[in-house]
Amino acid sequence: MAQGTPSVRVQAAEGADQPERTPELDALYRTFEQQLLIPLWTEIGELMPPQPSSRAVPHLWRWTELLPAAEQAGRLVPVGRGGERRAIALANPGLGGRPFATPTLWAAIQYLNPGEDAPVHRHTQNAFRFVVEGEGVWTVVNGDPVAMRRGDFLPQAGWNWHGHHNRSDRAMAWIDGLDIPFQHYTEATFFEFGPDQVEIREAAERSRSERLWGHPGLRPLTRLRPEPATPLLAYRWEHTDHALAEQLALEAEGHPVTVEPGHAAVRYTNPTTGGDVLPTLRTEFHRLAPYTETSARREVGSSVFQVFDGSGRVTVGGSSWTVERGDLFVVPSWQPLTLASEAGIDLFRFTDAPIFERLGLHRCNQEGAHA
Amino acid sequence: MAQGTPSVRVQAAEGADQPERTPELDALYRTFEQQLLIPLWTEIGELMPPQPSSRAVPHLWRWTELLPAAEQAGRLVPVGRGGERRAIALANPGLGGRPFATPTLWAAIQYLNPGEDAPVHRHTQNAFRFVVEGEGVWTVVNGDPVAMRRGDFLPQAGWNWHGHHNRSDRAMAWIDGLDIPFQHYTEATFFEFGPDQVEIREAAERSRSERLWGHPGLRPLTRLRPEPATPLLAYRWEHTDHALAEQLALEAEGHPVTVEPGHAAVRYTNPTTGGDVLPTLRTEFHRLAPYTETSARREVGSSVFQVFDGSGRVTVGGSSWTVERGDLFVVPSWQPLTLASEAGIDLFRFTDAPIFERLGLHRCNQEGAHA
Amino acid sequence: MAQGTPSVRVQAAEGADQPERTPELDALYRTFEQQLLIPLWTEIGELMPPQPSSRAVPHLWRWTELLPAAEQAGRLVPVGRGGERRAIALANPGLGGRPFATPTLWAAIQYLNPGEDAPVHRHTQNAFRFVVEGEGVWTVVNGDPVAMRRGDFLPQAGWNWHGHHNRSDRAMAWIDGLDIPFQHYTEATFFEFGPDQVEIREAAERSRSERLWGHPGLRPLTRLRPEPATPLLAYRWEHTDHALAEQLALEAEGHPVTVEPGHAAVRYTNPTTGGDVLPTLRTEFHRLAPYTETSARREVGSSVFQVFDGSGRVTVGGSSWTVERGDLFVVPSWQPLTLASEAGIDLFRFTDAPIFERLGLHRCNQEGAHA
Amino acid sequence: MAQGTPSVRVQAAEGADQPERTPELDALYRTFEQQLLIPLWTEIGELMPPQPSSRAVPHLWRWTELLPAAEQAGRLVPVGRGGERRAIALANPGLGGRPFATPTLWAAIQYLNPGEDAPVHRHTQNAFRFVVEGEGVWTVVNGDPVAMRRGDFLPQAGWNWHGHHNRSDRAMAWIDGLDIPFQHYTEATFFEFGPDQVEIREAAERSRSERLWGHPGLRPLTRLRPEPATPLLAYRWEHTDHALAEQLALEAEGHPVTVEPGHAAVRYTNPTTGGDVLPTLRTEFHRLAPYTETSARREVGSSVFQVFDGSGRVTVGGSSWTVERGDLFVVPSWQPLTLASEAGIDLFRFTDAPIFERLGLHRCNQEGAHA
Repeated sequence: MAQGTPSVRVQAAEGADQPERTPELDALYRTFEQQLLIPLWTEIGELMPPQPSSRAVPHLWRWTELLPAAEQAGRLVPVGRGGERRAIALANPGLGGRPFATPTLWAAIQYLNPGEDAPVHRHTQNAFRFVVEGEGVWTVVNGDPVAMRRGDFLPQAGWNWHGHHNRSDRAMAWIDGLDIPFQHYTEATFFEFGPDQVEIREAAERSRSERLWGHPGLRPLTRLRPEPATPLLAYRWEHTDHALAEQLALEAEGHPVTVEPGHAAVRYTNPTTGGDVLPTLRTEFHRLAPYTETSARREVGSSVFQVFDGSGRVTVGGSSWTVERGDLFVVPSWQPLTLASEAGIDLFRFTDAPIFERLGLHRCNQEGAHA
Repeated sequence: MAQGTPSVRVQAAEGADQPERTPELDALYRTFEQQLLIPLWTEIGELMPPQPSSRAVPHLWRWTELLPAAEQAGRLVPVGRGGERRAIALANPGLGGRPFATPTLWAAIQYLNPGEDAPVHRHTQNAFRFVVEGEGVWTVVNGDPVAMRRGDFLPQAGWNWHGHHNRSDRAMAWIDGLDIPFQHYTEATFFEFGPDQVEIREAAERSRSERLWGHPGLRPLTRLRPEPATPLLAYRWEHTDHALAEQLALEAEGHPVTVEPGHAAVRYTNPTTGGDVLPTLRTEFHRLAPYTETSARREVGSSVFQVFDGSGRVTVGGSSWTVERGDLFVVPSWQPLTLASEAGIDLFRFTDAPIFERLGLHRCNQEGAHA
Repeated sequence: MAQGTPSVRVQAAEGADQPERTPELDALYRTFEQQLLIPLWTEIGELMPPQPSSRAVPHLWRWTELLPAAEQAGRLVPVGRGGERRAIALANPGLGGRPFATPTLWAAIQYLNPGEDAPVHRHTQNAFRFVVEGEGVWTVVNGDPVAMRRGDFLPQAGWNWHGHHNRSDRAMAWIDGLDIPFQHYTEATFFEFGPDQVEIREAAERSRSERLWGHPGLRPLTRLRPEPATPLLAYRWEHTDHALAEQLALEAEGHPVTVEPGHAAVRYTNPTTGGDVLPTLRTEFHRLAPYTETSARREVGSSVFQVFDGSGRVTVGGSSWTVERGDLFVVPSWQPLTLASEAGIDLFRFTDAPIFERLGLHRCNQEGAHA
Repeated sequence: MAQGTPSVRVQAAEGADQPERTPELDALYRTFEQQLLIPLWTEIGELMPPQPSSRAVPHLWRWTELLPAAEQAGRLVPVGRGGERRAIALANPGLGGRPFATPTLWAAIQYLNPGEDAPVHRHTQNAFRFVVEGEGVWTVVNGDPVAMRRGDFLPQAGWNWHGHHNRSDRAMAWIDGLDIPFQHYTEATFFEFGPDQVEIREAAERSRSERLWGHPGLRPLTRLRPEPATPLLAYRWEHTDHALAEQLALEAEGHPVTVEPGHAAVRYTNPTTGGDVLPTLRTEFHRLAPYTETSARREVGSSVFQVFDGSGRVTVGGSSWTVERGDLFVVPSWQPLTLASEAGIDLFRFTDAPIFERLGLHRCNQEGAHA
């Protein structure tokens, strides 16, 4: 192979020294362009930063704006085959106008009028619903109708048939979380249409999945193998609320069961493995006692929080907001997060952490602290 | 090495042909004996049978005999340091007068008078208690008092400090299950004494472990790693009963969730893994609808059953008994088992199956049917 | 919540019916824009296609063009701190001018003149080198110098210090593969500088890692735990070649050990787990006997192949090329691939399959066929 | 339930205080006997010792006695269907005259005259062969003939068909290791006869399994799933010897790769998992440099060692022997072991450690030191 005397470098804007531009180098760069080649040395500043430098930015969406917009969509936009869902997504201002809350996470408000159906389909994207207020809609998963009520968390693993039906006489809104941006970017998405209406028009208060799986520590003998996603389709508010209240009570009795003083938290898990409910999504619920402030936490991967109840102050990197019931905010990768309550605050959280943990890429400034 | 002309074989009593006895062979056998050597060819019939040929035999212990014997021990035998427990073990008649229900499993009735303490100790043996009747005793595990009541299952993983205290004004009896014979044979046992009395004299109805872990699908954020044994120290009857009733109700609605028609069953599991509660012991609860008969099942490893409620007929290999509340029976390795109910029957079961599954030695004539 | 009469839908360009544009709807869409909201119904066609629809396109880079471009860079562009590597990346024409071979994979030719050092650094990106020709460079990983020679595969797990040094009197080129695009998109990248020159200036033919780990089926007693990436830093050509030759020989003797007739293949694995060498990257070597054609394979996730020896015809989706030694080509997600040899062909392959397998998103039209 | 005043305890021989014998207590004990019940308090001393108290004793069998006994058996005892193998087992003097080296492990010398066949059978017991001297026998596993030569380790997972054939003109002896006592005790054994002679009469120097699996870090694409036991049927001496020599050489160069100074060791592993070769048996090879002494190690579970080469001094609990090539000795559970070399010593070791590790019962006084 040939060799020669490389020219002197000059400092380039993006951090890395760049070779001095000469006619020969310009010619080489043109050759690169023609051959669909790009050198590392012109790109390294962006591609290999010292730590994650998220394009996503911290941002807050207020429920008092989000819900009226969804209500207006309920008046103007039908729901049906093709559009599939009356869902309106949070679009992070750093992500170029895409409907992505973070590079990996989709977060949307979905709205269904009385009597409406969101048609049945299935897709490889993992999904869930979380209900900050209202009730009356059943999500029907593989023929199992699951009632949705305030405080409930309803996971929906990829490639299961599902539709929604509002049996009540009131409209209902809730939050959808999915891994749409991740699967879109990595090009893993499959999608199929099912019936235009959900097959089950009558529904019990308790889904079959809850009747089979909702007993702590007990598994049916017919379902003993690990399953990739949770078979339990509803995590009811009464259990979440109770678990959090007990953590704070045990802390008050002197037992170190909380994340940090005044900070109770549970993770929703797959009872067949003890791990995350969905292969790409982690979901948690956090409760801060009155006038509690968390220590700053930074973590590889991004999160979306929704305030479920109470109020407080949230600081993400350089942004800080007072938040109230229903407000949603985004924590980009490696941005420090602090939560502070007023008279107490309850927050639902979802993240892409399983992606990083399963690939050996997870990092946290409090490693080991919570696990 | 030397070689020669081996002598002709003769049929031996134990199945394998044996070489004809000659003075030279007798001399060789004496040499073997002196050198602490034993040939395979004289032992193979016993060591390598075509299928497991259990020394343990099917046997039934009646509660109507067992409980009075325990009560009499309550009058005559103190409980305290040294003897440790007023526990009386089932001794399988095939196992040479050892206190072993099967080659791997210990099953005993334990009895505690009002006000008595079973002193604190810990051991590597995995253990549990199951309560067929009564209440009033608290088992205190690492300082966490756990009330014991009819129908409750209380696992106790190896190497945790534990003692029992009867706070009530009535004596109480329950069943202990352990892997004592297995650990005795394989020589894995460690044991340590703790205080002579349990440290906690007052007790709540609900243990701290239940308050922390007893919420279906929810984990505290401070305990996210898999744990080798369940952190949930009480599996209450109300949940077990409810789970079984729901299985039969779902079956009646047309959903195939039972083991076989009219046969509901749950396995007690570790919420941090979805697997068995204890590394060496599997525990289950079975309910047969009225006038239901199970198909014959045979499995490597042994089981002990206790009738919790109802009555029926049990057939194990060539033995068959009518059974009632509290009766205990043993199913040796690879013996076929059939259960048949009269007006319905509820059975608690424990087995050594995790040992065989973890070592790749498990076999069942219904492989895949229940899993 | 409010409700109303949604307007009639009209067919939209991207597939999903769209609601008829009215002044009210236009106003709602402006509200969405102000509030950083985007509806699903305008985006679903792109976000939820029936199957993966890759932006990356099948493309071929010829070694006869690639190597001269690298040689010219060797003359004109210095290597050193800041730019870090004289690496020139394949830029897939479908990916908007980014230096990404596929949405997840980086593939580059790297070039080092005699006596040059590529400075020491570490990063969370997983990497490897594969050598299609030449020798003389040592890659030094955590102080262990690893010689690079034709046919060798040299994995380099994330967050290990590494640099390269050319001790010979000839320039050398090789191929780098990394998960840069994946970690860039998901924002997981950390990076640190080490010394400007590799610390070890003298090098043995065999790395310490090979001396410790390069014995089939044998592990040092000091390294018994599973490790997230392979501790073996060189997979030498003699072993790969031998393994492939044996597969074809065994096939000729009548044993079904090949992927399909005439198609031998090995996967490079982590000896501490038997799994992929790196958490995000799978690497394989394929050999086709003369005049052999593979069946069409499509798989979620993308691949890059390099022809190591021989020649043949490659068909990826609608593209088809005759390929020769050193040529590199890209197979986007879910595009069918067929390989056909002339007098035989050897191919190195790397893919992002571990990402999809670990997240439950892997699919292949030959599921189970190769595993 | 009834209650009363328990009588005063008296000290009993086996350690635990015993209740004073009264006519009533004697009557209760007779009731127990009739009802097949045994109290814990009379047995606890034996069943729950403070640490494992092995019935097996340290013992040494000298090769200079063992081999002649096997040779004489070769003259006097035929090998064939029924007896199956001319194998002579080590019978630990503490184990009541059973052919068990330890409570879990079988170790035997097997001997085959020129031209003889050990007939084909299969069994659930896991097995291996290790060759301290000689060659000429092929073990044929599922139709794959595997040559046996000095220093080779040949694993044989449960339930594979296998027989042996001596193609040479010399007798050959080797060591068999199995989990017969464990499976006998736990009653997990299945056994089937195959043909009376091995089906393959001609044999290559290299088995098919080696040709497919014997390439470090490379797996065939047709065998990608984890397998419960190693698919590699021969671990050749040249690799073992080389790996150990390299460890000592690396140590001499300043790299901490040995267990302790002068003590090199490898574990034989399953290339599909990185774990033990067999589900119940661990096998290792240890080399001590000249005049090296190991630190005392005690471990739950038992081991058998065979001296492969060199000589030294072995201390197990209170026993100590000078050992030479071929000598076999037993280390019972929790007995401390020290090895000391003269001009160097090579030792093959097998243990039941996987049983304890998989069941959460493993303990070692050097926890973490070797892993």
